[in-house]
Amino acid sequence: MLACSSALAQLERVRQQTESLCEPLETEDYCIQPMLDASPPKWHLAHTTWFFETFVLKHAVPNYQVFDSAYEYLFNSYYEGIGTRHPRSDRGLLSRPLVSEIYAYRKHVDDALRCLLAGTPDTECLRRIELGLHHEQQHQELLITDLKCNLGRNPIHPIYLEKPSPLTQPTSVQTAFIEYRGQMLEIGAVLDKDPFCFDNELPRHSVWLAPYAIADRLVTNGEYLEFMADGGYETVSLWLSDGWGEKIARSWESPEYWFQQDGEWLEYTLHGVTPVDLESPVCHVSYFEADAYARWARARLPTEFEWEAAAQTSDHCERGTFAEDGHFHPRPQPPTFCGDCWQWTSSSYAPYPGYQPLEGTLGEYNGKFMANQYVLRGGSCATPTSHYRHSYRNFFYSKDRWQFTGIRLGRNLDN
Amino acid sequence: MLACSSALAQLERVRQQTESLCEPLETEDYCIQPMLDASPPKWHLAHTTWFFETFVLKHAVPNYQVFDSAYEYLFNSYYEGIGTRHPRSDRGLLSRPLVSEIYAYRKHVDDALRCLLAGTPDTECLRRIELGLHHEQQHQELLITDLKCNLGRNPIHPIYLEKPSPLTQPTSVQTAFIEYRGQMLEIGAVLDKDPFCFDNELPRHSVWLAPYAIADRLVTNGEYLEFMADGGYETVSLWLSDGWGEKIARSWESPEYWFQQDGEWLEYTLHGVTPVDLESPVCHVSYFEADAYARWARARLPTEFEWEAAAQTSDHCERGTFAEDGHFHPRPQPPTFCGDCWQWTSSSYAPYPGYQPLEGTLGEYNGKFMANQYVLRGGSCATPTSHYRHSYRNFFYSKDRWQFTGIRLGRNLDN
Amino acid sequence: MLACSSALAQLERVRQQTESLCEPLETEDYCIQPMLDASPPKWHLAHTTWFFETFVLKHAVPNYQVFDSAYEYLFNSYYEGIGTRHPRSDRGLLSRPLVSEIYAYRKHVDDALRCLLAGTPDTECLRRIELGLHHEQQHQELLITDLKCNLGRNPIHPIYLEKPSPLTQPTSVQTAFIEYRGQMLEIGAVLDKDPFCFDNELPRHSVWLAPYAIADRLVTNGEYLEFMADGGYETVSLWLSDGWGEKIARSWESPEYWFQQDGEWLEYTLHGVTPVDLESPVCHVSYFEADAYARWARARLPTEFEWEAAAQTSDHCERGTFAEDGHFHPRPQPPTFCGDCWQWTSSSYAPYPGYQPLEGTLGEYNGKFMANQYVLRGGSCATPTSHYRHSYRNFFYSKDRWQFTGIRLGRNLDN
Amino acid sequence: MLACSSALAQLERVRQQTESLCEPLETEDYCIQPMLDASPPKWHLAHTTWFFETFVLKHAVPNYQVFDSAYEYLFNSYYEGIGTRHPRSDRGLLSRPLVSEIYAYRKHVDDALRCLLAGTPDTECLRRIELGLHHEQQHQELLITDLKCNLGRNPIHPIYLEKPSPLTQPTSVQTAFIEYRGQMLEIGAVLDKDPFCFDNELPRHSVWLAPYAIADRLVTNGEYLEFMADGGYETVSLWLSDGWGEKIARSWESPEYWFQQDGEWLEYTLHGVTPVDLESPVCHVSYFEADAYARWARARLPTEFEWEAAAQTSDHCERGTFAEDGHFHPRPQPPTFCGDCWQWTSSSYAPYPGYQPLEGTLGEYNGKFMANQYVLRGGSCATPTSHYRHSYRNFFYSKDRWQFTGIRLGRNLDN
Repeated sequence: MLACSSALAQLERVRQQTESLCEPLETEDYCIQPMLDASPPKWHLAHTTWFFETFVLKHAVPNYQVFDSAYEYLFNSYYEGIGTRHPRSDRGLLSRPLVSEIYAYRKHVDDALRCLLAGTPDTECLRRIELGLHHEQQHQELLITDLKCNLGRNPIHPIYLEKPSPLTQPTSVQTAFIEYRGQMLEIGAVLDKDPFCFDNELPRHSVWLAPYAIADRLVTNGEYLEFMADGGYETVSLWLSDGWGEKIARSWESPEYWFQQDGEWLEYTLHGVTPVDLESPVCHVSYFEADAYARWARARLPTEFEWEAAAQTSDHCERGTFAEDGHFHPRPQPPTFCGDCWQWTSSSYAPYPGYQPLEGTLGEYNGKFMANQYVLRGGSCATPTSHYRHSYRNFFYSKDRWQFTGIRLGRNLDN
Repeated sequence: MLACSSALAQLERVRQQTESLCEPLETEDYCIQPMLDASPPKWHLAHTTWFFETFVLKHAVPNYQVFDSAYEYLFNSYYEGIGTRHPRSDRGLLSRPLVSEIYAYRKHVDDALRCLLAGTPDTECLRRIELGLHHEQQHQELLITDLKCNLGRNPIHPIYLEKPSPLTQPTSVQTAFIEYRGQMLEIGAVLDKDPFCFDNELPRHSVWLAPYAIADRLVTNGEYLEFMADGGYETVSLWLSDGWGEKIARSWESPEYWFQQDGEWLEYTLHGVTPVDLESPVCHVSYFEADAYARWARARLPTEFEWEAAAQTSDHCERGTFAEDGHFHPRPQPPTFCGDCWQWTSSSYAPYPGYQPLEGTLGEYNGKFMANQYVLRGGSCATPTSHYRHSYRNFFYSKDRWQFTGIRLGRNLDN
Repeated sequence: MLACSSALAQLERVRQQTESLCEPLETEDYCIQPMLDASPPKWHLAHTTWFFETFVLKHAVPNYQVFDSAYEYLFNSYYEGIGTRHPRSDRGLLSRPLVSEIYAYRKHVDDALRCLLAGTPDTECLRRIELGLHHEQQHQELLITDLKCNLGRNPIHPIYLEKPSPLTQPTSVQTAFIEYRGQMLEIGAVLDKDPFCFDNELPRHSVWLAPYAIADRLVTNGEYLEFMADGGYETVSLWLSDGWGEKIARSWESPEYWFQQDGEWLEYTLHGVTPVDLESPVCHVSYFEADAYARWARARLPTEFEWEAAAQTSDHCERGTFAEDGHFHPRPQPPTFCGDCWQWTSSSYAPYPGYQPLEGTLGEYNGKFMANQYVLRGGSCATPTSHYRHSYRNFFYSKDRWQFTGIRLGRNLDN
Repeated sequence: MLACSSALAQLERVRQQTESLCEPLETEDYCIQPMLDASPPKWHLAHTTWFFETFVLKHAVPNYQVFDSAYEYLFNSYYEGIGTRHPRSDRGLLSRPLVSEIYAYRKHVDDALRCLLAGTPDTECLRRIELGLHHEQQHQELLITDLKCNLGRNPIHPIYLEKPSPLTQPTSVQTAFIEYRGQMLEIGAVLDKDPFCFDNELPRHSVWLAPYAIADRLVTNGEYLEFMADGGYETVSLWLSDGWGEKIARSWESPEYWFQQDGEWLEYTLHGVTPVDLESPVCHVSYFEADAYARWARARLPTEFEWEAAAQTSDHCERGTFAEDGHFHPRPQPPTFCGDCWQWTSSSYAPYPGYQPLEGTLGEYNGKFMANQYVLRGGSCATPTSHYRHSYRNFFYSKDRWQFTGIRLGRNLDN
């Protein structure tokens, strides 16, 4: 758990990091909610602050004065235990509070947290601060993906950040499949070893895995274009029934943010519009597209257990792109299990055997979403490295495409 | 028609007035589209400018360089003849262009117009500038009503302008009905007399009016509260069938912006939340509520012809509140036919006999909306006085409530 | 008003006529509600019976025993004064009561009405019976149009009635425009002269009509095909704004029930699928299509007042097709003002000056629909002749196409 | 696999059974589609017949003449490989083909199948007939549940079958939890042992199960009423997030078909309205309600693997109610794993490791639905016994309530 000695430093670092991500923004950018799922930057800045105010300061600071009582209503995301809240659909309809007021709110709460940490906060308090920091890191990623949704849907395609000067790209290597024999494996976070984990990564437990193989890299744009060229988006037999329904309803013909111009495929990135890079991992695909691609490739998606077993035992010491790289878009990968794109697994998001949610309102953090979503693993180019571990379970609906979501293939092996 | 000599002065005045209305705004306020009908201030600023660029400058200035070619798509409202356009539903999803860029756009176009007027623009050009100025004044009113919709739906109820110091209020007088005998009357704008009119006010033509009476003032909040207290919102027999459907679907229990607190009726105004003033005209009611109120009062709504005949021949020399008063909310009225609230008439919006729309794309200005809407007369507290005349025909859908819309009663008289 | 002496004969005739219309039906046909607007035949049979039970028998017969108390809920159409009712959207979800039970219900009510008429019913009672008979005749037309909607949307296109042997068709004549000078005219039913009228046809009143011309026949399919061939459905400038929206949303490319096969236009009729007949009046068009056609033809739709004035003073002694002809589809017309298709007028449905609805719940019959609909005149091939008169005002929404609705052109004339 | 010798007998039995289920129906009952999910009986009768025609007769009979080529379009459910099909939403809008024509269609196909079986059909043909029979048995259950949805939503609550004379009811016994230690178990159908299984029950494979306990009976209405009385439907912390959304959107306050009258809970059954029986298993609950109940009961739903392991090794030799009992409603249960209600498991519907769908269009039978649904186990009072086996995997969406769906509890045990 977070030690009191390092808590302040981490607090400063994480809170500052959120604001750094907003540095390139204009005031107008802070206010836009481009679709129901994607909140405005202003809201992320305020909600993460509300989390500390609600779950830490009100809990630990006697006579704590809230910054503005209206914010309790405005910036509650989904905690039913806290009371009513502003409708999610209306987050982009609030011109007030102003951006400057939200920054003042952040300062107010940060100051109170500093003050709290200057004393001797109890264990529960430190535990909640730690949770708040990981919560804020989750919202750092959402801030980026939601901002991309805003800018990417704008017909004039604004640029968030100029593209960093090019790295030495890895020599193109062929994807290999790593094989695993049937075995019993331990899955989930290790309480003593991992510095932090969410409740949904526990308890560590045994799973029997039949023999399988798993790719050592993500599917690339080049490979995905072959699927498209082979009629992947027109071949109903490749698709799950619900997936085909979504494809028709939403007119999917390519990954999100892709469009064709003069016969060339382009994509909107946070550095602006660029040609689709053949060597980079394909990104912004739904579960349904990932599943259809896998079927086309005579493979399948791995389960989250196969994925975790492979990641934990892999020899690959390299990592793909994370948020700290400042690239915010997938890049050509070395063989690795993590970074660049969250990877759809075939596992429906469900509690591990013996799962216990947190006590009280914080119990709403994870458990209540354990239905009708799919687990994603591996982190992305928008995930802070310090927020990542192999046991991390991300989850989205099968139709979602606005996250940095990609594809790793798995296969059955004979016994 | 607009003389070249006065065109520049009018241009400066009207264009400046739009920007003056925006002075109290914060950057964030410029971006919000609180509902499909209500556009962001930024959009109004840009669209009125687009109108001049498209219909005046491109027409009259050889080799005119547009400010930004993307704006042709982004700020076209509904002119199909111009090409495709950005969807109305997405006007609040554009963080870019920035507010500052829109002001630069305005300056670019204003400078070009000044330059044009320094020369010898032809008649058609002056006619279009005049239309553009009246078009902009229409949007000045919409800018205010759409902004009210934004701020009024914000749970923290921001204030647009502090309330001006109180005027001497008129002594409360009883509403009187003015009676008119059956007669043939001329309706519509008089080309030689009126300095400007829209095409929908022409041609002037004869209408036979049976004997009728019409109230000399608008229905007040106090009177409307009697209707409410008498079960007006629960008595289905008072309502049109479609109106009752809307009432149920939208849970109408009072005019828009009203809410009850501790047994008292309050309303959101652009000066903030205030108690409902009993002497002021009731405002923000739909056609259906106006019609139901009239039925309850054993009266009816006047036709637009009855209204215009009465307004043109009335002795009342006073006016209600207009935009120049800077009040932006209805106030207690003297006997008058105009100001404070647009008044629903029972007349469906239709062309006058012999109506001819303007030539070309500008023909889309009015004529294509002549179905399924109702005519409103009289101007409101958000209408510029210089934009108003008794022959003016405003029009909205029967369910609309976000404009400053009120009620004047009419009655049948025996022959 | 209906004399007691003839009431029984009329009752027998009208009630029998409804059942005759159902003779070609199979049990399955009685149950289908193909869209929200179109009720199942079973419902029409029951609702018209409910009308007599509710407004006549319960009123006039002491201790009248209702056939089934559930029917009061199931077969009330829209009379709020009677109580709650079965949702309109669910009329096709009732397999019970059985068709045979509905016929038993009709017999129960008919017997009670016969019994009542064998005595000395009072004037109010006779007035209500008369209203009930005209109400039933209205539903005879709806039964036919709703049935056509059911069968016409069935991919196997069932036939309702074999086509009667061909009549001698009128020699094709050119449409002529009849001219009227400006004049004051009396509009509305004449109480002493007309044997029956609805409340919405009263009071008779004066209207001033500017000089106008009106076509002596309906627009034909051949003429409408010219509009289509000239890009009528693709030329936005011909359409009202709301109309273009409907056209896009509903993918209108031709009148309802038309489809193209091997380059030929066919249409579903109640006699099955036939080639579109060039000489017959175009049918199943919305107000928006009628308006667009008129604009294309450099004409306009007539007002309901122009229409009535022309119809009442016309020399044409022939009539088009009515229900008694048993054809149930428009046929080539002689010059005439009535029959074959209801004709869209440019008049929004509104009360005549001095209009008074009926007392009590029957006041809901007409008045509460007087908004947002357009008046149609002239009767159709599904209207019983005995139900028709020139002052008759039918009304539908501008988007409606499932009625037999066609187009008559009007024009402005100079003074 | 089905032997040729017994195929004819089974065909006669199963096909006859479908028609027997329809014996109590009136013609009108055959046509109703009460909601998108619930097809009319007529459609089930035709679609099961279409399945034999399409997959058996066209495959095996040279020059087979289809009964009506329109039926290929009308009665295809979801087989994209076959071509376009009639929209699911419109199944209740077809008054034609008539019920009698559908029975003639059945006879036509049955005769052709008899003829085929009188010869020497090949193995593939027999395999397809067998699949067709199990397919038809699935639709027998759907026919009953869809019919219940029709009759149950009719305000007059028609009776399908009189209640059979009461059985001796089991003495009320307390629910016990059977405990299982952690172990590796084989899950899935056994090819040599089971006479038939669907592709989704294969391949048989190993699963590691942590120690768990599972109830020996279903949750009863009495127990569920305690949950309701304890505020189960108002306590948001008991619900999954998506579940609470559904509860609010659909106003769930009790299981489907329940309603309160004079303080007593009644429910619609196929025998009509009866008081809720406290000893019978609760039925017509969604996954979300089952999950919320389990949370309230400090338990959880079992996984499908826990369920199958327990069912296969259980000593309980009794069975609950199946379709052959003719009761079509759950009854008080002895300790048993099957019958009365399908039981929601916490397992998302997914392919078993190594799953292979059938070849060709029949591959659409199961695999394409393996996402976003939950597995149910155990069979119900509407399932034919001969259709059931413990490895059977049924699947529905988490919001579905119109099937006979109930609750069995599971629990974690310490290692």
